[in-house]
Amino acid sequence: MKKNTKCPLKKSLRRILLYRGSLLRLQALGVKKVYSYTLGKETGVSAEQVRKDFSEYQIKGNQRGGYHVDEMINEMEMIFYKNGSQNLIVVGMGNIGSSLANYSRFIQRNINIVATFDIDPSKQRLRSDIPVYTMDRLGEIIGRFNVRTAIIAVPDIAAQGVCDQLMKFGIEGVINFAPVILKVPEDIIVNNINLSDEIESVIYCVSQPAIK
Amino acid sequence: MKKNTKCPLKKSLRRILLYRGSLLRLQALGVKKVYSYTLGKETGVSAEQVRKDFSEYQIKGNQRGGYHVDEMINEMEMIFYKNGSQNLIVVGMGNIGSSLANYSRFIQRNINIVATFDIDPSKQRLRSDIPVYTMDRLGEIIGRFNVRTAIIAVPDIAAQGVCDQLMKFGIEGVINFAPVILKVPEDIIVNNINLSDEIESVIYCVSQPAIK
Repeated sequence: MKKNTKCPLKKSLRRILLYRGSLLRLQALGVKKVYSYTLGKETGVSAEQVRKDFSEYQIKGNQRGGYHVDEMINEMEMIFYKNGSQNLIVVGMGNIGSSLANYSRFIQRNINIVATFDIDPSKQRLRSDIPVYTMDRLGEIIGRFNVRTAIIAVPDIAAQGVCDQLMKFGIEGVINFAPVILKVPEDIIVNNINLSDEIESVIYCVSQPAIK
Repeated sequence: MKKNTKCPLKKSLRRILLYRGSLLRLQALGVKKVYSYTLGKETGVSAEQVRKDFSEYQIKGNQRGGYHVDEMINEMEMIFYKNGSQNLIVVGMGNIGSSLANYSRFIQRNINIVATFDIDPSKQRLRSDIPVYTMDRLGEIIGRFNVRTAIIAVPDIAAQGVCDQLMKFGIEGVINFAPVILKVPEDIIVNNINLSDEIESVIYCVSQPAIK
């Protein structure tokens, strides 16, 4: 059995998440109906692209007089959380790991961090309301909470080793904040987020000479 | 005067940053020379792509018997830091902002966070070794440290307002962690990083049925 390797992290998926963000903000403002061009304008894509993406993900809403905001949000929640909220773990409770473990926004989005791990749990305990376990309990906790997705926030030299352990215990998706590209089997989904690179690419563009 | 709107955050730039990451790791391991296919394998692209990217950024190294690792790194540092290290500020010292302000990795990469801002600096002071200022000192500090790039890590409802203020004080590049798409003039560079979306897209892919 193989996971659909076409699915992982494609651009349309990211746009669907952007549309949902916009819809949630419009909902908070009391807006009931929205047109595809409004959503497109909010998210920086064309109205055609919005409709194409909705069609790809079979999001229907109701097109007469615009999409119903509440309905659209419900449909999107069904797509993302058809199996209820997802239990995640965070490995590595340094600066980045502990800020993610305590990020209040995740709770709103049904991202449920059930446990965190660090090689030195005693030192890190103060940083989080979520339990910090030693690495030897990884398998036990992953099994108990049926965890399929993990956040890696360990130093770069430790990241591949941690990733290999996670795979061994059945983790299928990884969000990796360590500044290395993880080597994983084809059926594992990895999202590498290198915060230094994200910042440096902006610095580079800013320092380019302007064109007259 | 307009900034080259073709520059911002293109894929080749991100790959150059990936190559540099690989080269730095190889350097730490004592490797002196490297072939384009080795770098490609490390970063998940073809050897042709590596050479094409180097050519685009005019990175020469020396192709006889492979690229010189030290030389390549020096050339890349010149590209990214030809004007020395860059002074940045962080606005919003919640979980994410304070973890970025204290991220030791940034120092290694010449990302120099000189000041942070929060509407409630007294509450946040304990979180950082870097000074936390009130928002009314934004213009003064940006001017004093010649800051051109800022990290926004405020709640979503405050982000556009903060961004507008930053533009007013001459900020040209923004890394935005607030889950909204910022509206900025064409010559401003914005990198929107939505951590919830990054995690949710992995969760979505993991929960897709496997293909036999």
